[in-house]
Amino acid sequence: MTDTIPTEGKQLFSTVTDDNRLELSMRTVPVGEPGDTEVLIRVDAAPINPSDLGVMLTVADSDSFEAGDDSASAPIPEKLQRAVAARKGVSIPIGNEGAGLVVKAGSSPEAQALLGKTVALAGGGMYATYRIAKANACMVVPEGTTAEEGASSFVNPLTALSMIGTMRLDGYKALIHTAAASNLGQMLVKLCLAEGVDLVNIVRSQEQVDLLKSLGAKYICDMSQPDFAKDLTAAIAETQAFLAFDATGGGRLANQILTAMEAAALKTQKANGPYGSTQYKQVYLYGGLNTAPTELTRGFGMSWGIGGYLLTYFLQRVGQEETAKLRDRVGAELKTTFASAYTSRITLEEAIDPATIAAYNKRATGEKYLITPQA
Amino acid sequence: MTDTIPTEGKQLFSTVTDDNRLELSMRTVPVGEPGDTEVLIRVDAAPINPSDLGVMLTVADSDSFEAGDDSASAPIPEKLQRAVAARKGVSIPIGNEGAGLVVKAGSSPEAQALLGKTVALAGGGMYATYRIAKANACMVVPEGTTAEEGASSFVNPLTALSMIGTMRLDGYKALIHTAAASNLGQMLVKLCLAEGVDLVNIVRSQEQVDLLKSLGAKYICDMSQPDFAKDLTAAIAETQAFLAFDATGGGRLANQILTAMEAAALKTQKANGPYGSTQYKQVYLYGGLNTAPTELTRGFGMSWGIGGYLLTYFLQRVGQEETAKLRDRVGAELKTTFASAYTSRITLEEAIDPATIAAYNKRATGEKYLITPQA
Repeated sequence: MTDTIPTEGKQLFSTVTDDNRLELSMRTVPVGEPGDTEVLIRVDAAPINPSDLGVMLTVADSDSFEAGDDSASAPIPEKLQRAVAARKGVSIPIGNEGAGLVVKAGSSPEAQALLGKTVALAGGGMYATYRIAKANACMVVPEGTTAEEGASSFVNPLTALSMIGTMRLDGYKALIHTAAASNLGQMLVKLCLAEGVDLVNIVRSQEQVDLLKSLGAKYICDMSQPDFAKDLTAAIAETQAFLAFDATGGGRLANQILTAMEAAALKTQKANGPYGSTQYKQVYLYGGLNTAPTELTRGFGMSWGIGGYLLTYFLQRVGQEETAKLRDRVGAELKTTFASAYTSRITLEEAIDPATIAAYNKRATGEKYLITPQA
Repeated sequence: MTDTIPTEGKQLFSTVTDDNRLELSMRTVPVGEPGDTEVLIRVDAAPINPSDLGVMLTVADSDSFEAGDDSASAPIPEKLQRAVAARKGVSIPIGNEGAGLVVKAGSSPEAQALLGKTVALAGGGMYATYRIAKANACMVVPEGTTAEEGASSFVNPLTALSMIGTMRLDGYKALIHTAAASNLGQMLVKLCLAEGVDLVNIVRSQEQVDLLKSLGAKYICDMSQPDFAKDLTAAIAETQAFLAFDATGGGRLANQILTAMEAAALKTQKANGPYGSTQYKQVYLYGGLNTAPTELTRGFGMSWGIGGYLLTYFLQRVGQEETAKLRDRVGAELKTTFASAYTSRITLEEAIDPATIAAYNKRATGEKYLITPQA
């Protein structure tokens, strides 16, 4: 099997250049030799998740990319340059997760055990033809599962599980999710139904309402409707969902959610004088689909919080043992609860083509791109 | 002593009216009889704190008040009406704290013990000629202390103590304070010096820098200077102050603080890939001097939080015993660490005069108004 492994591979990087451009580049890199406890994976499939787009494109306008030499780049708007200043000059290997075949393994038993197996992996640098990984970071996909089916085994499934986990650890009864018709959102609908957890889904079109209804979702609030604020307040009052996970980040959606939470809280409790309800209300921003500043009008009392949310921090919070249990569950339900669907498959070369960048960054709900580095 | 007590008194209320005006009114109210465990206080002095102004005026423009019948009112701007909708039609007695003489007491020993004593009190409704209170809610001011000296015994002193308490409970090493030249800010400077806690003071003029320097403040960052962001980052890097209390609330100051915290964190740790530092960064908004929306550009990684902050929630968190200790400390240091200075004294009638409203709402640092209901 090692006969067919090249000495050099290709890999994608994202860089904020010294002249304030965002550059996506494909570079030739050595394939390398796995150490004793490592394996070499031939990457067959790696999804483009919204969290990847944030890293890949930062705040660059995806319609303004120009092709370069094995690269594409776009200007970073001046007023946003400071936000990405910390990344200047640092090339970040991109692609959070993916799956592929273990084609070479170190001498340790745990590495050897993976040889010839299809494994899924998270940890960055997956938009590459080959990748070396620690054997204990790999998840063998269940018998009969392809690399494509296993490519999204981490980010979305574990994020969905982490949202419910956070809800339980922090003592909330139900939760709110925005961009709820996304792949992640659909998983969360299925997961919450299975767990008996009330979920308030925020979507932005009738088409998305219909999609989530077809999955069995009970609470769906459509931002495009004039009664959105009223519907959201009613759903929160019924479910007591005072915890929200917002994928959009920018604009006023978090503010609308906190305002609706406060209105819902005041249906069952008196205001604490001028300070609003004592009900604690939390919105976590786990994405930045809307790159505009987050705006808070603060008309929702004094008992509230908003903050960044990263799956990694949740996994650190619950520890290794619980993380392993969550991974096992994902593996077992990879073709049901945690199944992902892709609408487009592209090569590494296509991933840095300006027209393709504009297309995959549209982030249209229901659209999902998969990079197939071997194609 | 009871001979001189009238049967009716005067009291100030703040109301959001049905036609969306903010009304401050002086009403005649019965003085009432204290119950067994209660006392009747003749209110001699009650400060106008920034937290009072938020309740009194909400989002009304303080320059647009018009005099009415024992009242004054101002329109609430249309786009801000929803933020105060929950208060519509509810008259809130105003004045968080104050001090005065106990002129009548219930039959219980703890009430009787207060008769003829000067006490300080928090709990609302202090902009009044008389107020009934639970005996155990009153703090007898130390021998030789006047009502005026005791009037601000709760809000500012306990808030300053609560900031240091929060810092310790949440594991931070130092803290940042905005509007740092305020009465509260000056107390905090003195308190942090006494406690050996590093405090980064954010002010907005050279005059305020000089004032805080004269109190012994070490870290002072002036927003009016071009190097503000750089100075703030350097101060945070030196003190490791990743917790901030912001009195302004609106605009971009919280965002600037989080951005500087992140830059400071990245001086000693590598960025967690594209997700910024892992250093958790927290800004609490404890006031709303700037009524504009809070804007967050989110260029400070994913490990951050922002939220409302209320002294009450801190006191609930630490419990009654600790609260009693904090109060005792305030009493003991009322003429030193926790001394307040007033620049203007006004009557209840003047407090609802449009010109005076405009003046006390300027919230100029160093200016502080005291209401003297018996004058």
